Amino acid sequence: MTRRRIKGIAFDMYGTVVDVGAVAEACKGIAPDPVAFNAQWRAKQLEYTFLRSLMGAYQDFWRVSAQALEFTIQRFGFQVSPEQRRRLMEAWLHPSPYPEVAAALPRLKERYLLAVLSNGSPKMLRTGLTRSGLMPHFRWVISVDEVKLYKPSPKVYQLAVKHMKLKKEEVLFVSSNSFDVAGAKSFGFRVCWINRTGAPLDRLGVKPDLVVRNFDELRTTLI
Amino acid sequence: MTRRRIKGIAFDMYGTVVDVGAVAEACKGIAPDPVAFNAQWRAKQLEYTFLRSLMGAYQDFWRVSAQALEFTIQRFGFQVSPEQRRRLMEAWLHPSPYPEVAAALPRLKERYLLAVLSNGSPKMLRTGLTRSGLMPHFRWVISVDEVKLYKPSPKVYQLAVKHMKLKKEEVLFVSSNSFDVAGAKSFGFRVCWINRTGAPLDRLGVKPDLVVRNFDELRTTLI
Repeated sequence: MTRRRIKGIAFDMYGTVVDVGAVAEACKGIAPDPVAFNAQWRAKQLEYTFLRSLMGAYQDFWRVSAQALEFTIQRFGFQVSPEQRRRLMEAWLHPSPYPEVAAALPRLKERYLLAVLSNGSPKMLRTGLTRSGLMPHFRWVISVDEVKLYKPSPKVYQLAVKHMKLKKEEVLFVSSNSFDVAGAKSFGFRVCWINRTGAPLDRLGVKPDLVVRNFDELRTTLI
Repeated sequence: MTRRRIKGIAFDMYGTVVDVGAVAEACKGIAPDPVAFNAQWRAKQLEYTFLRSLMGAYQDFWRVSAQALEFTIQRFGFQVSPEQRRRLMEAWLHPSPYPEVAAALPRLKERYLLAVLSNGSPKMLRTGLTRSGLMPHFRWVISVDEVKLYKPSPKVYQLAVKHMKLKKEEVLFVSSNSFDVAGAKSFGFRVCWINRTGAPLDRLGVKPDLVVRNFDELRTTLI
């Protein structure tokens, strides 16, 4: 991929800039099969964002996450106290940056305008970025909440164009989530897929311009 | 639920009127872990319908199913011959009616206008309903292909209103799929959820008017 004409980088948040390992960790003390429980919760959370967008029945990511949690608890069929529910949800407010992120962002910021564009609610994003110390690196923190639709709706990606005041082709969108890569590419961004695990790409008819394993590779490609 | 004013019944197809056990069966001879493989394939197939609808990148259910199959094969990491791929896909054209369906439909037809409203492509629906002998029971076989969007978009449910020439509140929509129940109810239909397995209801803010275990219960409630 040529980096010519790229002026800004918009990053997905959860799973891309920050790890939600705190959520997996919180599941450990509570669910009998924490790995399966966490995977089901995350899958339902995303499914509900897709469904609510299609139905025109938006609720913010905090509420959708809580609803997905309730479903998953019922599906797994065990007792969870109000205090345990609170701990599971609060873990979403304590994400950790991936190890190489904090060093890469300042370097990228010297050359590009940086933004976050996420499904997260404004409060979740603000809290997570502040606690993880990443907030100062981003000029814009953009939540889908502004359009009441979730990724991969093109109206979400349009938000980055609007706030960053750049043309589509001047934005590099960076995400670890395959469906987000497809949505952003289909919208018209140039797209980098961070594939940390060697996962196969979803078959949605579009491919990223760049595939890297982590932020170090992203940085060395762009600078 | 009062049956007053219900004039027509629109049924979901796969998992509701017909069982896709032939697909599970076809997986058995081919995938090392056929149950997990089939579950992943089905989940991806649905996910792709949601994503393509949100992206405005519709392709029909046959193609989406084939793309979901390719992803799943790659994810599971084993070799599948062209002949085996063909067998897996062809299984979608050989659905079996649930045992009590063939007896219930003629009774319901005496009193109500019956339709199928499905994600399936026109060819998949025509072939499946003809082979299973159910075609004569339905006055309309409606595919989402007409609007190039998948469930639970309200534009899909509007298709039933258009073809059946009934008001929303005169239609009972029947589905086994929880997201389809939510979409139809959110649209304004009266809705029956066929819950054969005692699954929990998805937390999408709406509830069905009626929950039954099978077509026998549906029939005795409505006639």
